[in-house]
Amino acid sequence: MKGNVLVGQSGGPTTVINASLAGVLSAAFNSEQIEQVYGMINGIQGLMDDQLINLTKEFKGNEKKLEQLRITPSMYLGSCRYKLKDPAEDPSDMERVFELLAKYNIRYFLYIGGNDSMDTVNKVSKYAKEKGVDIQVIGIPKTIDNDLMEIDHTPGFGSAAKYIATSILEMSHDTYIYYMQSVMIVEIMGRNAGWLTAASVLARNAYNEAPHLIYLPESNFSCEQFIADIKEELKHRKQVIVAVSEGIHDENGEYISAKSTKTDQFGHVMLSGNGKYLESLVQQEIGCKVRSVELNVLQRCAAHISSATDVSEAFHLGEKAVDAVLNGHTEEMTSLKRISNDPYRVEYTTVPVSQVANKEKKIPVEWINQAGNDVKPELVEYLKPLIEGELKVEYKDGIPDYIFRQ
Amino acid sequence: MKGNVLVGQSGGPTTVINASLAGVLSAAFNSEQIEQVYGMINGIQGLMDDQLINLTKEFKGNEKKLEQLRITPSMYLGSCRYKLKDPAEDPSDMERVFELLAKYNIRYFLYIGGNDSMDTVNKVSKYAKEKGVDIQVIGIPKTIDNDLMEIDHTPGFGSAAKYIATSILEMSHDTYIYYMQSVMIVEIMGRNAGWLTAASVLARNAYNEAPHLIYLPESNFSCEQFIADIKEELKHRKQVIVAVSEGIHDENGEYISAKSTKTDQFGHVMLSGNGKYLESLVQQEIGCKVRSVELNVLQRCAAHISSATDVSEAFHLGEKAVDAVLNGHTEEMTSLKRISNDPYRVEYTTVPVSQVANKEKKIPVEWINQAGNDVKPELVEYLKPLIEGELKVEYKDGIPDYIFRQ
Repeated sequence: MKGNVLVGQSGGPTTVINASLAGVLSAAFNSEQIEQVYGMINGIQGLMDDQLINLTKEFKGNEKKLEQLRITPSMYLGSCRYKLKDPAEDPSDMERVFELLAKYNIRYFLYIGGNDSMDTVNKVSKYAKEKGVDIQVIGIPKTIDNDLMEIDHTPGFGSAAKYIATSILEMSHDTYIYYMQSVMIVEIMGRNAGWLTAASVLARNAYNEAPHLIYLPESNFSCEQFIADIKEELKHRKQVIVAVSEGIHDENGEYISAKSTKTDQFGHVMLSGNGKYLESLVQQEIGCKVRSVELNVLQRCAAHISSATDVSEAFHLGEKAVDAVLNGHTEEMTSLKRISNDPYRVEYTTVPVSQVANKEKKIPVEWINQAGNDVKPELVEYLKPLIEGELKVEYKDGIPDYIFRQ
Repeated sequence: MKGNVLVGQSGGPTTVINASLAGVLSAAFNSEQIEQVYGMINGIQGLMDDQLINLTKEFKGNEKKLEQLRITPSMYLGSCRYKLKDPAEDPSDMERVFELLAKYNIRYFLYIGGNDSMDTVNKVSKYAKEKGVDIQVIGIPKTIDNDLMEIDHTPGFGSAAKYIATSILEMSHDTYIYYMQSVMIVEIMGRNAGWLTAASVLARNAYNEAPHLIYLPESNFSCEQFIADIKEELKHRKQVIVAVSEGIHDENGEYISAKSTKTDQFGHVMLSGNGKYLESLVQQEIGCKVRSVELNVLQRCAAHISSATDVSEAFHLGEKAVDAVLNGHTEEMTSLKRISNDPYRVEYTTVPVSQVANKEKKIPVEWINQAGNDVKPELVEYLKPLIEGELKVEYKDGIPDYIFRQ
């Protein structure tokens, strides 16, 4: 049945959300069943504000622009963080959403996002079924955090992992040059799941053993043990490089970052990560040179070093969503299964979105070492293929030639 | 006259110091006048500890290894920060240096470094002349800070500038996606000279006006004016991105970072940059979402995104040093002059090292706008060619395939 597609992007950025959008557009432009593709500006919130653009007009027949979209970080359509009201309690949101879907004659609703965004997919598809509205709804996964259920790994994660591993390798070169003892603490994103911090292990190669210690939120963190671990490392190496998740917490569940409440000269509380806190701890307990580095938002937007594997998978997951709706699917998320690790092969599938929405996948404890300061080889094997391959990024005037919605 | 070369690296890292070393090796291996090339492990300090390696054995005839060296960040030979004692006051350092130079039959002494390292070049060459020792000494410039006199720009600067511009462009994509007002403060290296912070301007392109405000250490910084500037920007845009130098200071010369003395829960002082301080200031004075990002050491070691122009120039400045000693020069630094800007062309020369040692080049005031919150077009024209060109970096297992001294 012929109809229009509406696609949106939601949640935090990754470097490959636009690759999924490019996949949607590419598949939609190739289908005779799809008439127009509309994009929501700023996700579901933009839809409710009637902020749509016609992506068919913008991209169809413009291969160069589509290729630029594929490699541009963050969200071309803009994002939102909005949880739709439960229609059982307050139907106003959902009524507004369906009013707009009707206005634009939308038949297929595609939404690219993480576990919160899958809640939107779930609610919209359930409401459509309930009201007998002929709209199919499919989610397309994304998140640097790799914490979605029912998928081998999430698009966006591999590129963030590649950035983290490369940055730690480069910072290792920076650190190893001096005679003196030093400690470097690298604070990495991922509040509840330690996947990104674990990916720092991929910085290890034939000559580099850093990070020498890795602390994940899946284990309880002890400041005493942390200092003891560093002292132990300093016995047999001059420079110690440590990867810590922003989400590390003590045995009572208190975040280590919460310990670092600081006040400026006016007595105002200043927010900071746990890196700064651990830096001062090393300074006072060990006394050697110490530095902390917060990788910050670059982890999720440094598209100039995206993983080619990741970009390709994100693109296919977008295509797959179009394929799914055209084959009658709804209330699902496109997903991927790992068929083999060497050679690395995946299969594209769909899974019920209710099994993904609002849930979180953490690192299995059996992939973390006993001491809680490193990862096991099984985890390394799982991670390795995800950062493989480099993208051909075009540059203009010395900086990447990305695309931006005007 | 036949003889051996000794080469060392000193000071803080850049991504292209090894390119200069590769240039030295390449030129030396092609000269019949040069027998062996030795490297000092950890600079002049390593020399005094008799820590040399034979680079001819390590690299001659191994083109692949030399190419890897050319693109590897930081210092293959290791570094030091050591100021040689003035021989007039205490000749022990210099006597030790010349004892080792004699031991290894060194005829040519090449030293890659910044303004402090040029002090070493100056002292060693003067001492050689004074004592009638037949050793020629040439410095090869490097520093991300671009603060050396007598050179159009320094090797290492262009690559750091490219990293900064690219990162700010990517963070702009990250920032622009939401509805809400927000401020992002990016803290950039360069304590006394604002060249790197100024280079953030290269992130601006056809669609991106960020950074919207740029604060350099060459102007006095006022927190009141900073808040007023941001409020003004917020009148006509939702997201404001600000680049600040780590070295910004008030009219009394007090660093803004010194205002951010913070104490943790135990009352220990924690060190932090000015970004965190300005972040809390915006929070309290404006109240919108605000984030600060410290680009930190990645500015000087992210070789995967080096400027091809920079790498090429660093290599040629290394070659030029060999050329200079073979032509009888001493007590000089290799340098480059800009012949034209469009097309961009430089000429390789040498300059007296005494005019470089211990001096600092700042941004001319006429290249900064009246309000002290942006740079002028003349500065942009100066900067533009320096970040041009991308390097072909080989990857192995998803991370750059660099080289490391075992």
